[in-house]
Amino acid sequence: MLKYQQVADEIEKYIEDHGLQQGDKLPVLESLMARFEVSKSTITKSLDLLERKGAIFQVRGSGIFVRRHKRKGYISLLSNKGFKRDLEEYQLSSEIIQLEARKPTEEAALNLNMEFDEDVYYVKRVRYINGQPLCLEESFYNKSIVPYLNAEIVQDSIFDYIKDALGLKVGFSDLYLHIGKLTEEEARYLQLEKGDPKLYVETIFHLTNGKPFDFSKVSYNYEQSQFFLQG
Amino acid sequence: MLKYQQVADEIEKYIEDHGLQQGDKLPVLESLMARFEVSKSTITKSLDLLERKGAIFQVRGSGIFVRRHKRKGYISLLSNKGFKRDLEEYQLSSEIIQLEARKPTEEAALNLNMEFDEDVYYVKRVRYINGQPLCLEESFYNKSIVPYLNAEIVQDSIFDYIKDALGLKVGFSDLYLHIGKLTEEEARYLQLEKGDPKLYVETIFHLTNGKPFDFSKVSYNYEQSQFFLQG
Repeated sequence: MLKYQQVADEIEKYIEDHGLQQGDKLPVLESLMARFEVSKSTITKSLDLLERKGAIFQVRGSGIFVRRHKRKGYISLLSNKGFKRDLEEYQLSSEIIQLEARKPTEEAALNLNMEFDEDVYYVKRVRYINGQPLCLEESFYNKSIVPYLNAEIVQDSIFDYIKDALGLKVGFSDLYLHIGKLTEEEARYLQLEKGDPKLYVETIFHLTNGKPFDFSKVSYNYEQSQFFLQG
Repeated sequence: MLKYQQVADEIEKYIEDHGLQQGDKLPVLESLMARFEVSKSTITKSLDLLERKGAIFQVRGSGIFVRRHKRKGYISLLSNKGFKRDLEEYQLSSEIIQLEARKPTEEAALNLNMEFDEDVYYVKRVRYINGQPLCLEESFYNKSIVPYLNAEIVQDSIFDYIKDALGLKVGFSDLYLHIGKLTEEEARYLQLEKGDPKLYVETIFHLTNGKPFDFSKVSYNYEQSQFFLQG
């Protein structure tokens, strides 16, 4: 981790530890430089990173302010930290329905820019929050990028495995959201009624080199989920 | 507009004009500097801006690539260009249900950090896409920031008016998304059935100085709307 990233983490911790709220002012640049013992160029980089992350906003000639929403229990739609971090106070678990190496569906191949005769890992799981079904998830991982998955990895965090064990760098993602009605199968897994509302999200995750490695399709339980986004 | 912003616009136009697709490589830095007749520091700023906007991605040691999703007809959830730009190929219109200066509801006052005895503009409208109802929208504007609205402005783009006529700088926004079932009133406006699925989005828009000026509540027609997000 680079120095400015480390300092950015420390500033986030400072905000947390001091219980600062949206709109609260941070110490001036000079104080931050002194506190974290870094140069002006490092602290500027740290602040730019935090601004991109949506943790602060900078007002020219006025100061640096905390950006932090007030509502609890919302899932960040753009977090690549995964549910685990967003919903720290909640108990999360997964039930694996299916896990296998197979050929991609036509839809998965198109979204992953793969040939039909290449291999994917297919994972289908239900995720639970405090014992209630949160979502039904199907994911296709390009096997030439993610060569191995097992139940233990899938039970835990696949993204942690991809980053930590495989050393891959997760980059940007494209999300497509639809509102619809639950099918009979989805309703069964989510313990709802067929025809109940759902948020259905398709996501294509790319590595930092632009290669798509994961195509996922998630149907959310409308009673258990609410979402947050920063614009 | 600053030079690097202007060059960023020109690079976006270059991508458009050349019909470049996601993953296509842009000319190297030196060629871009020559083509747009700017310094390395300016072109670097332009590229960083485009990367933040999600129009390109840069791979260290490899090059600059186009980022552009393939699906048409999706509404960007985080665009502050408004629907008009996202859905250029579609015919969009609004019907005003209500427009008045009034006291805020408790909910609006809380979200806009206002006192209950201050004034807001309240706007309720149905927005149509190709003649079909797209969404029902209620917005509360802090009247001390947006001192005047009329039917003509509301019919057109309120945000264009805020930026161009009032000279205000629109900054960040917080979005809260819920999935639910349509009430009878919503269903009537959206020409759907009570109990049909809806995406309900609350947004708090802030100026660049961090002051919230608009709290909006939008219920989308699930048959007419699909959404796109970049992560």
